[in-house]
Amino acid sequence: MTESTPITHSDNEIPRPAGSDRQAAIEQDVVDRVVRSFDQCPDPRLQQVMVSLVEHLHDFLREVRPTEAEWARAIEFLTAAGHITDDRRQEFILLSDTLGVSMQTIAINNEIHRDATEATVFGPFFVENSPHIELGEDMSFGATGQPCWVEGTVTDTDGRALPGARIEVWEADDDGLYDVQYPDGRIAGRAHLFTDDDGAYRFWALTPTPYPIPHDGPVGAMLRAAGRSPYRASHLHFMVTVEGYRRLVTHIFVRGDELLDRDSVFGVKESLVKDFIEQPAGTAPDGRTIDRTWTQVRFDIVLAPAE
Amino acid sequence: MTESTPITHSDNEIPRPAGSDRQAAIEQDVVDRVVRSFDQCPDPRLQQVMVSLVEHLHDFLREVRPTEAEWARAIEFLTAAGHITDDRRQEFILLSDTLGVSMQTIAINNEIHRDATEATVFGPFFVENSPHIELGEDMSFGATGQPCWVEGTVTDTDGRALPGARIEVWEADDDGLYDVQYPDGRIAGRAHLFTDDDGAYRFWALTPTPYPIPHDGPVGAMLRAAGRSPYRASHLHFMVTVEGYRRLVTHIFVRGDELLDRDSVFGVKESLVKDFIEQPAGTAPDGRTIDRTWTQVRFDIVLAPAE
Repeated sequence: MTESTPITHSDNEIPRPAGSDRQAAIEQDVVDRVVRSFDQCPDPRLQQVMVSLVEHLHDFLREVRPTEAEWARAIEFLTAAGHITDDRRQEFILLSDTLGVSMQTIAINNEIHRDATEATVFGPFFVENSPHIELGEDMSFGATGQPCWVEGTVTDTDGRALPGARIEVWEADDDGLYDVQYPDGRIAGRAHLFTDDDGAYRFWALTPTPYPIPHDGPVGAMLRAAGRSPYRASHLHFMVTVEGYRRLVTHIFVRGDELLDRDSVFGVKESLVKDFIEQPAGTAPDGRTIDRTWTQVRFDIVLAPAE
Repeated sequence: MTESTPITHSDNEIPRPAGSDRQAAIEQDVVDRVVRSFDQCPDPRLQQVMVSLVEHLHDFLREVRPTEAEWARAIEFLTAAGHITDDRRQEFILLSDTLGVSMQTIAINNEIHRDATEATVFGPFFVENSPHIELGEDMSFGATGQPCWVEGTVTDTDGRALPGARIEVWEADDDGLYDVQYPDGRIAGRAHLFTDDDGAYRFWALTPTPYPIPHDGPVGAMLRAAGRSPYRASHLHFMVTVEGYRRLVTHIFVRGDELLDRDSVFGVKESLVKDFIEQPAGTAPDGRTIDRTWTQVRFDIVLAPAE
């Protein structure tokens, strides 16, 4: 059997178009029987999901025509992904991320609404109960990196300011690690704050730097075999919550980052790429003196109404 | 968002066909970026498989439009399947079996060849180094059940006898368990034998009885939620090997079994359903006396040439 053509025959001496039809009918019969097995499903949504899954999965099989050895490798891959997954490591989310499934789910669940800010992947590094900071304070809490002044507003799609918006922010340090990736229990590089009466916010963070997703497991092996990089484009996470509005989970990315067009989890959207303007050592917007270069970025956030 | 319609909008006061187009373009862009990420794949077959997987997977997502909660349940399902899988239990194979993926892979890799005997699923209960029996001997080795006399021939597609064909047979006992499912290390209900100079074979087995696939894990939960039974139609496994011919892995099924049209792994093919003819106590075909009812079945096996 040739792997790259849909239907082939070893019996070359007799052309058998009818044989192809018979083979196709046998394969379609498998699909039909599996679909029918969900006829008695008491949950219409589950039935819809399973029937669609079966149809698309079998379309895939009939297109690529896996050998039995390839099927066995797929089973081994899933088994290895299951075995490396524990409370701290989630290989199936990495798989979802690296196949764009997470980003597609985000796109589907955050349909564009006028000019509301676009969403992107949540990622595995959010932690509840982050420290509260006042406007203008520093969310790094000792995480290392270049200081970055972040400011902007939170408004609705008619441009009305949203005071008291809760903004969660989190990011990796300049070693590419989030606090939760250190074994010492530190809390750093994360905080929450609230917009003022004008819907404005401002805080000190770190200029984002690139880092790889965990790549010592089967997903990393898949990326290597496919010639793909495990690196994510540099980014700063935001989650913005206001009663009556759609919760926004997003990042901002650094314009000029060479990884923007090959982010390993496909999280980049052009509207989320921002200018991180490098500034000389000296006096910062909040009056403090900084003895090294720093950056400044503006991110005006627009929330869609709740549905 | 309504789950059952492809694209919906919360902003009902403004009809936005252009918005639908924009949303569709955003979703297609995710697919395009994931496909492009495999552009540098050094292995053309891996690239073909991954690109096809991505396209069909995203077609599925865009069709069913999973909520984020549904996506999270899918991740939990795969995680649970990974965690229950060990050296004796393979939940991903059960998942493949119950979605018809195993049977489709069998169909694809055993394309019909004239009137060669059809293949079906291998299953997880084959064991290497089964006992050798002579023609007419008993493969039950103490496994309990109704005696069954099995006979037939092995030929090629031109009807020529194939002497010395190696036939492996294995089956569950009448408690629905294979020997390897008992903790005591027994070897029972399995053997191998060889055809005689006329390509004929005959042996004593057990009349097959139905049994459930392991259903105490996530796949069992899926079957229950979907209103599906975990039971397999009654069957006797065969694997037939002759140099120069395609190896045949198949079963025979019992005509009249009420599970034939709802086998949990979709292994039934009409050509493999056989008459197991009930016989009174008395003298069997090999001259032995049996003090209970027994059955008799004929299975003539036709092998396709090797490719």
